[in-house]
Amino acid sequence: MRNAARLVTDSLPPELRADRDAVEESLRAVRTIHATRLGTAARHLLEAGGKRLRPLLTCAAARTLGADPRPRAALVAAVELVHVGSLLHDDVIDAGAVRRGRPAVHAAYDAHTAILAGDLLFAWAFDRLARDGSRELQIALGDAIRALCEGEVLERERRRDPTVEVEHVRRVNRLKTAALFGYAAEAAALLADAPTATRAALREYGLALGEAFQAADDLLDWEGRPESLGKPLCRDLAEGLVNLPVALGADRDGALRDAVRACWGASDDDAAAARRFALRAALREAGAFEATRELAREDARRAVAALHPLPAGPWRDWLAAAAAASVERDG
Amino acid sequence: MRNAARLVTDSLPPELRADRDAVEESLRAVRTIHATRLGTAARHLLEAGGKRLRPLLTCAAARTLGADPRPRAALVAAVELVHVGSLLHDDVIDAGAVRRGRPAVHAAYDAHTAILAGDLLFAWAFDRLARDGSRELQIALGDAIRALCEGEVLERERRRDPTVEVEHVRRVNRLKTAALFGYAAEAAALLADAPTATRAALREYGLALGEAFQAADDLLDWEGRPESLGKPLCRDLAEGLVNLPVALGADRDGALRDAVRACWGASDDDAAAARRFALRAALREAGAFEATRELAREDARRAVAALHPLPAGPWRDWLAAAAAASVERDG
Repeated sequence: MRNAARLVTDSLPPELRADRDAVEESLRAVRTIHATRLGTAARHLLEAGGKRLRPLLTCAAARTLGADPRPRAALVAAVELVHVGSLLHDDVIDAGAVRRGRPAVHAAYDAHTAILAGDLLFAWAFDRLARDGSRELQIALGDAIRALCEGEVLERERRRDPTVEVEHVRRVNRLKTAALFGYAAEAAALLADAPTATRAALREYGLALGEAFQAADDLLDWEGRPESLGKPLCRDLAEGLVNLPVALGADRDGALRDAVRACWGASDDDAAAARRFALRAALREAGAFEATRELAREDARRAVAALHPLPAGPWRDWLAAAAAASVERDG
Repeated sequence: MRNAARLVTDSLPPELRADRDAVEESLRAVRTIHATRLGTAARHLLEAGGKRLRPLLTCAAARTLGADPRPRAALVAAVELVHVGSLLHDDVIDAGAVRRGRPAVHAAYDAHTAILAGDLLFAWAFDRLARDGSRELQIALGDAIRALCEGEVLERERRRDPTVEVEHVRRVNRLKTAALFGYAAEAAALLADAPTATRAALREYGLALGEAFQAADDLLDWEGRPESLGKPLCRDLAEGLVNLPVALGADRDGALRDAVRACWGASDDDAAAARRFALRAALREAGAFEATRELAREDARRAVAALHPLPAGPWRDWLAAAAAASVERDG
């Protein structure tokens, strides 16, 4: 199943490929009036070739409902602008030096430009919704951004705390990641003027897929291949953050908490690397990785089940495949 | 004329005092669901008692047009949410340790929380416009935020460059400061469903007032009293930024550019302080402070002139007084 996600997003049906092209074209239209450096910085990450999973979900869900998303591509693209804007701010926060295989903007430029480039992308996203979106769509996107902010802070509030519970990590993941996926899927119902029940079903699908996606991300931070991820391994641990495999591992074997704490020492030498590898072995031994994968698969199953009220057909099948693929991926 | 600004915003007519109370109440309604730390951080600066000049301009302008702003207070408050959100991001950028007499959020909390608290306030501002604002209002606020981002970057692009021209500083000030004042005044026309010409006049008023305000701010950075400003003097210079008095001074006496460059050395000792005081004396000698004040007054006169098409009366007079006061202030 390796690379299933890439199969889903790279081998797109022709309609979705056309949708993605329209989204890309709309993203390229992000321009500034004066400060070329700001525009360059914003485009630096925007054009680094993400999978565009969030707008693709909107497009496929819209097609499930019989709507053609292309005439509204600028609107669909707003979710990607928010996603990339939040990555820009994350990278300032995390001091992450590499993102999508490129130097992070704040490393290539500076923190100042990265913060403002993120703000700019948020403003562009709202501009698109203001010009062509409904009030409900605007409110839903605002809610998702607020959830995202809260998730980030909630996560940091327990920084360097090895007693963080699985439920806390799950709540963080719902806020910081799943909320925007929930919006992406829900947006299709709003674009297609679908009934409330459809809107709720798509939102539920997006949220569950987002939880699966983040659980898989947490797992990749331990087990991924750096060259596929476009970023180094164990970034969460280095940041003092307990992600899902660690919380699940500590839940199974409390002694692991001491090993986690030992990894948060100041040094970054061979001894520290040895401690990280030992912790990884211990987590694997405790079944933490398998438990994380199982949780992610359960989330993906919930996502697929949520699709039940939607019209059956190839587009619903694609959404189901996307949920499964968000777990079985290598980057 | 010292403290004229405070007289205008502190000795408010009863109607405007009621308007401001309604805005304050609406600002206090900013809440988070989970992360109390995020809400606390956002409120830290939001409730540090700014003058609320931008929402007051909207309210007074709405009253000039015969509209009562109180039922739309939540909408009016959005401009203050954006202003404070941008201050939060500015302080991370400037590493400014004090703001409005309080430790800056990123010092009291951390840069991470300050960035997310700023994002949260932006999202809240858009939420209010989404719930109760027109499409035009949303687009106008988005434009103002983009201008703000561009102004900040444009300013930094010429960091530590003593050859920055007066026109460059003026452009920066129009973008980073005047655009949001322009929105604040224009918003009143949109709230009151006023004709296009009125909207254009109010926007012109706000932009000119904003230029006057920032010119005065640039002057206060050199001549203000730290205890009135709630922040230390010469912050721009310390940041390597050429503000209006410096650009005007160098325009009159090119030799001042060397003195400016000398202040950008790494040291922060008595010798550096002596260089700053010498530069201040030289700028005063060159008439740079008087020229800045004259430019600000000219902006304020433009602002007053822009009000001409509006109905005469006490509210138009208040707007005119606010323009004059934005120059003659001490903090």
